[in-house]
Amino acid sequence: MELLKQRILKDGSVKEGGILKVDSFLNHQIDIKLLNEIGKEFKKRFDGKKIEKILTIESSGIAIACISAQYFNVPVVFAKKSMSLNLGKDVYTSKVVSFTKNKTYNIYVCKKYIKKDEKILIIDDFLARGQAALGLLDIINQAGAVLSGIGIVIEKEFQKGRRVLEEKGAHIESLAIVKSMEDGQVVFR
Amino acid sequence: MELLKQRILKDGSVKEGGILKVDSFLNHQIDIKLLNEIGKEFKKRFDGKKIEKILTIESSGIAIACISAQYFNVPVVFAKKSMSLNLGKDVYTSKVVSFTKNKTYNIYVCKKYIKKDEKILIIDDFLARGQAALGLLDIINQAGAVLSGIGIVIEKEFQKGRRVLEEKGAHIESLAIVKSMEDGQVVFR
Repeated sequence: MELLKQRILKDGSVKEGGILKVDSFLNHQIDIKLLNEIGKEFKKRFDGKKIEKILTIESSGIAIACISAQYFNVPVVFAKKSMSLNLGKDVYTSKVVSFTKNKTYNIYVCKKYIKKDEKILIIDDFLARGQAALGLLDIINQAGAVLSGIGIVIEKEFQKGRRVLEEKGAHIESLAIVKSMEDGQVVFR
Repeated sequence: MELLKQRILKDGSVKEGGILKVDSFLNHQIDIKLLNEIGKEFKKRFDGKKIEKILTIESSGIAIACISAQYFNVPVVFAKKSMSLNLGKDVYTSKVVSFTKNKTYNIYVCKKYIKKDEKILIIDDFLARGQAALGLLDIINQAGAVLSGIGIVIEKEFQKGRRVLEEKGAHIESLAIVKSMEDGQVVFR
Protein backbone atom coordinates (compact mmCIF):
# COMPACT_ATOMS: atom_id res chain seq x y z
CA MET A 1 0.00 0.00 0.00
CA GLU A 2 1.94 2.95 -1.36
CA LEU A 3 0.30 5.68 0.75
CA LEU A 4 1.20 3.79 3.92
CA LYS A 5 4.79 3.09 2.86
CA GLN A 6 5.33 6.75 2.00
CA ARG A 7 3.95 7.72 5.39
CA ILE A 8 6.25 5.28 7.19
CA LEU A 9 9.25 6.71 5.33
CA LYS A 10 8.16 10.27 6.08
CA ASP A 11 7.05 10.00 9.73
CA GLY A 12 8.34 6.67 11.03
CA SER A 13 11.65 6.23 12.79
CA VAL A 14 13.80 3.27 13.72
CA LYS A 15 14.70 2.88 17.39
CA GLU A 16 17.06 0.55 19.21
CA GLY A 17 15.91 -3.02 19.68
CA GLY A 18 14.30 -3.34 16.26
CA ILE A 19 11.49 -0.93 17.05
CA LEU A 20 9.79 0.93 14.23
CA LYS A 21 8.19 3.98 15.80
CA VAL A 22 5.01 5.05 14.02
CA ASP A 23 3.31 6.69 16.95
CA SER A 24 2.71 9.98 15.16
CA PHE A 25 0.03 8.41 12.95
CA LEU A 26 -0.74 4.81 13.94
CA ASN A 27 -0.58 3.91 17.61
CA HIS A 28 -0.49 6.97 19.86
CA GLN A 29 -1.60 9.85 17.70
CA ILE A 30 -3.92 8.39 15.07
CA ASP A 31 -4.49 9.72 11.56
CA ILE A 32 -8.09 8.66 11.01
CA LYS A 33 -8.04 9.46 7.29
CA LEU A 34 -5.09 7.10 6.82
CA LEU A 35 -6.95 4.47 8.82
CA ASN A 36 -9.90 4.85 6.46
CA GLU A 37 -7.61 4.06 3.54
CA ILE A 38 -6.16 1.12 5.46
CA GLY A 39 -9.66 -0.18 6.13
CA LYS A 40 -10.60 0.06 2.44
CA GLU A 41 -7.40 -1.75 1.48
CA PHE A 42 -8.10 -4.60 3.92
CA LYS A 43 -11.59 -4.88 2.44
CA LYS A 44 -10.07 -5.17 -1.02
CA ARG A 45 -7.44 -7.69 0.06
CA PHE A 46 -10.00 -9.97 1.71
CA ASP A 47 -12.64 -9.51 -0.95
CA GLY A 48 -14.78 -12.63 -1.35
CA LYS A 49 -13.84 -14.04 2.06
CA LYS A 50 -16.69 -14.55 4.47
CA ILE A 51 -16.00 -12.36 7.51
CA GLU A 52 -18.47 -12.04 10.37
CA LYS A 53 -16.32 -10.45 13.05
CA ILE A 54 -12.98 -8.69 13.49
CA LEU A 55 -10.80 -9.76 16.40
CA THR A 56 -7.91 -7.65 17.65
CA ILE A 57 -5.93 -7.03 20.83
CA GLU A 58 -5.70 -3.97 23.05
CA SER A 59 -4.60 -1.25 22.74
CA SER A 60 -3.03 -0.43 19.43
CA GLY A 61 -5.14 -2.81 17.35
CA ILE A 62 -8.43 -1.24 18.40
CA ALA A 63 -8.40 1.89 16.26
CA ILE A 64 -7.41 0.01 13.11
CA ALA A 65 -9.92 -2.78 13.72
CA CYS A 66 -12.81 -0.40 14.39
CA ILE A 67 -12.23 1.89 11.43
CA SER A 68 -11.73 -1.15 9.17
CA ALA A 69 -14.88 -2.85 10.49
CA GLN A 70 -16.94 -0.13 8.84
CA TYR A 71 -15.96 -1.50 5.42
CA PHE A 72 -16.75 -5.09 6.41
CA ASN A 73 -19.95 -4.13 8.21
CA VAL A 74 -19.17 -6.37 11.19
CA PRO A 75 -18.61 -5.91 14.93
CA VAL A 76 -15.18 -5.87 16.59
CA VAL A 77 -14.01 -7.80 19.62
CA PHE A 78 -10.74 -6.90 21.28
CA ALA A 79 -8.83 -9.30 23.51
CA LYS A 80 -7.92 -7.80 26.88
CA LYS A 81 -4.52 -8.04 28.46
CA SER A 82 -5.76 -8.12 32.03
CA MET A 83 -8.66 -9.66 33.88
CA SER A 84 -11.03 -7.04 35.22
CA LEU A 85 -14.22 -7.05 37.26
CA ASN A 86 -15.95 -6.16 34.05
CA LEU A 87 -14.80 -9.25 32.18
CA GLY A 88 -16.53 -11.98 34.18
CA LYS A 89 -15.22 -15.51 34.57
CA ASP A 90 -16.40 -17.22 31.43
CA VAL A 91 -13.43 -16.37 29.23
CA TYR A 92 -11.11 -17.90 26.68
CA THR A 93 -7.52 -17.23 27.56
CA SER A 94 -4.17 -17.69 25.88
CA LYS A 95 -0.55 -16.77 26.53
CA VAL A 96 1.38 -14.30 24.43
CA VAL A 97 5.16 -13.98 24.54
CA SER A 98 6.33 -10.41 24.03
CA PHE A 99 9.95 -10.29 22.89
CA THR A 100 10.20 -6.51 22.99
CA LYS A 101 8.83 -6.36 26.53
CA ASN A 102 10.62 -9.59 27.47
CA LYS A 103 7.63 -11.10 29.22
CA THR A 104 4.67 -13.40 28.79
CA TYR A 105 1.18 -12.11 29.34
CA ASN A 106 -2.30 -13.56 29.20
CA ILE A 107 -5.05 -12.39 26.88
CA TYR A 108 -8.74 -12.82 27.54
CA VAL A 109 -11.92 -12.86 25.47
CA CYS A 110 -15.41 -13.45 26.89
CA LYS A 111 -16.70 -16.76 25.56
CA LYS A 112 -19.98 -15.30 24.40
CA TYR A 113 -18.29 -12.95 21.93
CA ILE A 114 -16.63 -15.61 19.78
CA LYS A 115 -19.11 -18.17 18.55
CA LYS A 116 -18.65 -21.65 17.12
CA ASP A 117 -18.21 -21.57 13.32
CA GLU A 118 -18.02 -17.77 13.28
CA LYS A 119 -15.73 -16.47 10.51
CA ILE A 120 -13.11 -14.24 12.07
CA LEU A 121 -10.64 -11.75 10.62
CA ILE A 122 -7.72 -10.89 12.90
CA ILE A 123 -6.44 -7.32 12.53
CA ASP A 124 -3.37 -5.86 14.20
CA ASP A 125 -0.91 -3.02 13.77
CA PHE A 126 2.32 -5.08 13.64
CA LEU A 127 3.40 -8.57 12.73
CA ALA A 128 6.83 -9.33 14.15
CA ARG A 129 7.27 -12.84 15.54
CA GLY A 130 3.57 -13.55 15.26
CA GLN A 131 2.98 -14.21 18.93
CA ALA A 132 -0.02 -11.91 19.41
CA ALA A 133 -1.76 -13.33 16.32
CA LEU A 134 -0.96 -16.87 17.52
CA GLY A 135 -2.65 -16.11 20.83
CA LEU A 136 -5.72 -14.77 19.04
CA LEU A 137 -5.76 -17.80 16.73
CA ASP A 138 -5.58 -20.08 19.77
CA ILE A 139 -8.69 -18.36 21.15
CA ILE A 140 -10.47 -18.73 17.79
CA ASN A 141 -9.64 -22.45 17.85
CA GLN A 142 -10.79 -22.86 21.44
CA ALA A 143 -14.12 -21.33 20.44
CA GLY A 144 -14.48 -23.60 17.41
CA ALA A 145 -14.61 -20.48 15.23
CA VAL A 146 -12.86 -20.17 11.86
CA LEU A 147 -9.97 -17.92 10.89
CA SER A 148 -10.80 -16.08 7.65
CA GLY A 149 -7.49 -14.24 7.53
CA ILE A 150 -5.03 -11.97 9.26
CA GLY A 151 -4.75 -8.31 8.25
CA ILE A 152 -1.57 -6.56 9.34
CA VAL A 153 -0.63 -2.92 8.83
CA ILE A 154 3.16 -3.33 9.11
CA GLU A 155 4.98 -6.65 8.87
CA LYS A 156 8.59 -6.90 9.97
CA GLU A 157 9.53 -9.68 7.59
CA PHE A 158 12.93 -10.31 9.18
CA GLN A 159 11.25 -11.38 12.43
CA LYS A 160 9.60 -14.30 10.65
CA GLY A 161 6.14 -14.23 12.22
CA ARG A 162 4.55 -14.96 8.85
CA ARG A 163 6.05 -18.45 8.65
CA VAL A 164 4.73 -19.43 12.09
CA LEU A 165 1.21 -18.35 11.13
CA GLU A 166 1.21 -19.73 7.59
CA GLU A 167 2.19 -23.11 9.02
CA LYS A 168 -1.16 -22.95 10.80
CA GLY A 169 -2.90 -22.30 7.49
CA ALA A 170 -3.41 -18.56 7.92
CA HIS A 171 -3.95 -16.24 4.94
CA ILE A 172 -2.01 -13.09 5.83
CA GLU A 173 -2.27 -9.73 4.13
CA SER A 174 0.26 -7.10 5.24
CA LEU A 175 -0.08 -3.58 3.86
CA ALA A 176 3.60 -2.71 4.27
CA ILE A 177 6.30 -5.36 4.53
CA VAL A 178 9.59 -4.17 6.00
CA LYS A 179 12.52 -6.22 4.75
CA SER A 180 15.19 -4.56 6.85
CA MET A 181 15.76 -1.60 9.16
CA GLU A 182 19.54 -1.53 9.31
CA ASP A 183 21.28 1.78 10.09
CA GLY A 184 17.91 3.37 10.79
CA GLN A 185 16.87 2.87 7.16
CA VAL A 186 13.49 1.28 6.48
CA VAL A 187 13.62 -0.92 3.36
CA PHE A 188 10.38 -2.42 2.07
CA ARG A 189 10.17 -5.73 0.26
CA MET B 1 -29.68 9.70 23.12
CA GLU B 2 -32.62 7.37 22.96
CA LEU B 3 -31.00 4.62 20.83
CA LEU B 4 -28.17 4.31 23.35
CA LYS B 5 -30.48 4.28 26.37
CA GLN B 6 -32.61 1.54 24.83
CA ARG B 7 -29.47 -0.47 24.10
CA ILE B 8 -28.24 -0.10 27.69
CA LEU B 9 -31.62 -1.28 28.99
CA LYS B 10 -31.63 -4.22 26.56
CA ASP B 11 -28.02 -5.41 26.74
CA GLY B 12 -26.45 -3.76 29.78
CA SER B 13 -26.37 -5.32 33.22
CA VAL B 14 -25.65 -4.06 36.70
CA LYS B 15 -22.89 -5.82 38.64
CA GLU B 16 -21.68 -5.57 42.21
CA GLY B 17 -19.63 -2.52 43.11
CA GLY B 18 -21.65 -0.08 41.03
CA ILE B 19 -20.48 -1.53 37.73
CA LEU B 20 -22.63 -1.13 34.64
CA LYS B 21 -21.55 -3.86 32.24
CA VAL B 22 -21.93 -2.85 28.60
CA ASP B 23 -19.23 -5.07 27.18
CA SER B 24 -21.50 -6.67 24.59
CA PHE B 25 -21.61 -3.46 22.55
CA LEU B 26 -19.29 -0.77 23.94
CA ASN B 27 -16.04 -1.89 25.50
CA HIS B 28 -15.17 -5.49 24.67
CA GLN B 29 -17.38 -6.42 21.76
CA ILE B 30 -18.04 -3.21 19.85
CA ASP B 31 -21.11 -2.39 17.79
CA ILE B 32 -19.58 -0.12 15.16
CA LYS B 33 -22.96 1.04 13.81
CA LEU B 34 -23.94 2.22 17.29
CA LEU B 35 -20.58 4.00 17.57
CA ASN B 36 -21.31 5.77 14.28
CA GLU B 37 -24.55 7.10 15.79
CA ILE B 38 -22.67 8.09 18.94
CA GLY B 39 -20.11 9.95 16.85
CA LYS B 40 -22.83 11.85 14.96
CA GLU B 41 -24.50 12.77 18.24
CA PHE B 42 -21.24 14.12 19.71
CA LYS B 43 -20.77 16.19 16.56
CA LYS B 44 -24.27 17.63 17.04
CA ARG B 45 -23.76 18.31 20.74
CA PHE B 46 -20.50 20.17 20.16
CA ASP B 47 -21.65 21.95 17.03
CA GLY B 48 -20.01 25.35 16.68
CA LYS B 49 -17.15 24.52 19.07
CA LYS B 50 -13.69 24.66 17.60
CA ILE B 51 -12.17 21.19 17.90
CA GLU B 52 -8.76 20.33 16.46
CA LYS B 53 -8.04 17.03 18.18
CA ILE B 54 -9.75 14.34 20.21
CA LEU B 55 -8.00 13.08 23.33
CA THR B 56 -8.96 9.83 25.06
CA ILE B 57 -7.42 7.15 27.25
CA GLU B 58 -6.65 3.50 26.53
CA SER B 59 -8.26 1.11 26.06
CA SER B 60 -12.01 1.55 26.06
CA GLY B 61 -12.00 5.17 24.93
CA ILE B 62 -10.14 4.44 21.70
CA ALA B 63 -12.93 2.92 19.62
CA ILE B 64 -15.39 5.67 20.51
CA ALA B 65 -12.85 8.44 19.95
CA CYS B 66 -11.74 7.09 16.56
CA ILE B 67 -15.19 6.50 15.13
CA SER B 68 -16.33 9.91 16.43
CA ALA B 69 -13.25 11.65 15.01
CA GLN B 70 -14.54 10.92 11.50
CA TYR B 71 -17.39 13.38 12.08
CA PHE B 72 -15.05 16.07 13.42
CA ASN B 73 -12.41 15.43 10.78
CA VAL B 74 -9.58 15.54 13.33
CA PRO B 75 -6.87 13.15 14.59
CA VAL B 76 -7.08 11.23 17.86
CA VAL B 77 -4.49 10.93 20.60
CA PHE B 78 -4.89 8.35 23.31
CA ALA B 79 -3.15 8.60 26.67
CA LYS B 80 -1.24 5.46 27.59
CA LYS B 81 -1.41 3.80 30.97
CA SER B 82 2.15 2.53 30.94
CA MET B 83 5.50 3.77 29.81
CA SER B 84 6.89 1.77 26.93
CA LEU B 85 10.02 1.81 24.79
CA ASN B 86 7.84 3.20 22.07
CA LEU B 87 6.76 6.24 24.05
CA GLY B 88 10.07 8.05 24.49
CA LYS B 89 10.93 10.30 27.38
CA ASP B 90 9.42 13.60 26.39
CA VAL B 91 5.96 13.03 27.85
CA TYR B 92 3.27 14.79 29.83
CA THR B 93 2.13 12.65 32.72
CA SER B 94 -0.65 12.77 35.27
CA LYS B 95 -2.04 10.54 37.99
CA VAL B 96 -5.47 8.94 37.83
CA VAL B 97 -7.21 7.42 40.85
CA SER B 98 -9.31 4.39 39.91
CA PHE B 99 -11.94 3.71 42.55
CA THR B 100 -13.19 0.51 40.94
CA LYS B 101 -9.68 -0.91 40.69
CA ASN B 102 -8.67 0.67 44.01
CA LYS B 103 -5.37 1.99 42.73
CA THR B 104 -3.64 5.03 41.30
CA TYR B 105 -1.97 4.84 37.91
CA ASN B 106 -0.04 7.21 35.70
CA ILE B 107 -1.09 8.27 32.22
CA TYR B 108 1.30 9.47 29.54
CA VAL B 109 1.03 11.54 26.37
CA CYS B 110 4.00 12.44 24.14
CA LYS B 111 4.53 16.18 24.32
CA LYS B 112 4.61 16.64 20.58
CA TYR B 113 1.04 15.37 20.17
CA ILE B 114 -0.66 18.05 22.26
CA LYS B 115 0.26 21.54 21.14
CA LYS B 116 -0.03 24.91 22.83
CA ASP B 117 -3.41 26.56 22.13
CA GLU B 118 -4.75 23.42 20.41
CA LYS B 119 -8.50 22.99 20.94
CA ILE B 120 -9.11 19.56 22.44
CA LEU B 121 -12.24 17.47 22.88
CA ILE B 122 -11.95 14.72 25.51
CA ILE B 123 -13.99 11.60 24.74
CA ASP B 124 -14.47 8.60 27.01
CA ASP B 125 -16.87 5.73 27.57
CA PHE B 126 -17.78 6.44 31.20
CA LEU B 127 -17.92 9.37 33.56
CA ALA B 128 -18.07 8.19 37.17
CA ARG B 129 -15.98 10.21 39.61
CA GLY B 130 -14.30 12.10 36.82
CA GLN B 131 -10.77 11.04 37.64
CA ALA B 132 -9.75 9.91 34.15
CA ALA B 133 -11.06 13.13 32.58
CA LEU B 134 -9.30 15.16 35.29
CA GLY B 135 -6.02 13.47 34.40
CA LEU B 136 -6.53 14.23 30.71
CA LEU B 137 -7.47 17.84 31.54
CA ASP B 138 -4.31 18.13 33.63
CA ILE B 139 -2.27 17.08 30.58
CA ILE B 140 -4.14 19.58 28.38
CA ASN B 141 -3.29 22.30 30.90
CA GLN B 142 0.36 21.25 31.10
CA ALA B 143 0.55 21.58 27.32
CA GLY B 144 -1.08 25.02 27.32
CA ALA B 145 -3.81 23.58 25.11
CA VAL B 146 -7.51 24.42 25.48
CA LEU B 147 -10.35 22.13 26.52
CA SER B 148 -13.25 22.48 24.08
CA GLY B 149 -15.45 19.99 25.88
CA ILE B 150 -15.87 16.51 27.29
CA GLY B 151 -18.02 13.95 25.47
CA ILE B 152 -19.10 10.97 27.55
CA VAL B 153 -21.12 7.96 26.42
CA ILE B 154 -22.48 6.96 29.84
CA GLU B 155 -22.47 9.19 32.90
CA LYS B 156 -23.12 7.70 36.32
CA GLU B 157 -24.65 10.82 37.82
CA PHE B 158 -24.67 9.46 41.38
CA GLN B 159 -20.86 9.30 41.38
CA LYS B 160 -20.67 13.07 40.96
CA GLY B 161 -17.79 13.34 38.48
CA ARG B 162 -19.64 16.09 36.60
CA ARG B 163 -19.39 18.52 39.49
CA VAL B 164 -15.61 18.08 39.81
CA LEU B 165 -15.13 18.79 36.10
CA GLU B 166 -17.65 21.64 35.82
CA GLU B 167 -15.82 23.38 38.67
CA LYS B 168 -12.86 23.46 36.29
CA GLY B 169 -15.01 25.10 33.63
CA ALA B 170 -15.62 22.00 31.49
CA HIS B 171 -18.57 21.75 29.10
CA ILE B 172 -19.72 18.14 29.42
CA GLU B 173 -22.10 16.30 27.10
CA SER B 174 -23.18 12.83 28.23
CA LEU B 175 -25.28 10.75 25.86
CA ALA B 176 -26.90 8.68 28.60
CA ILE B 177 -27.08 9.84 32.21
CA VAL B 178 -27.74 7.10 34.75
CA LYS B 179 -29.48 8.45 37.85
CA SER B 180 -29.47 5.21 39.82
CA MET B 181 -28.77 1.50 39.47
CA GLU B 182 -30.43 0.18 42.62
CA ASP B 183 -31.59 -3.45 42.66
CA GLY B 184 -30.00 -4.01 39.29
CA GLN B 185 -32.37 -1.49 37.68
CA VAL B 186 -30.88 1.21 35.47
CA VAL B 187 -32.82 4.47 35.80
CA PHE B 188 -31.92 7.35 33.49
CA ARG B 189 -32.29 11.00 34.43
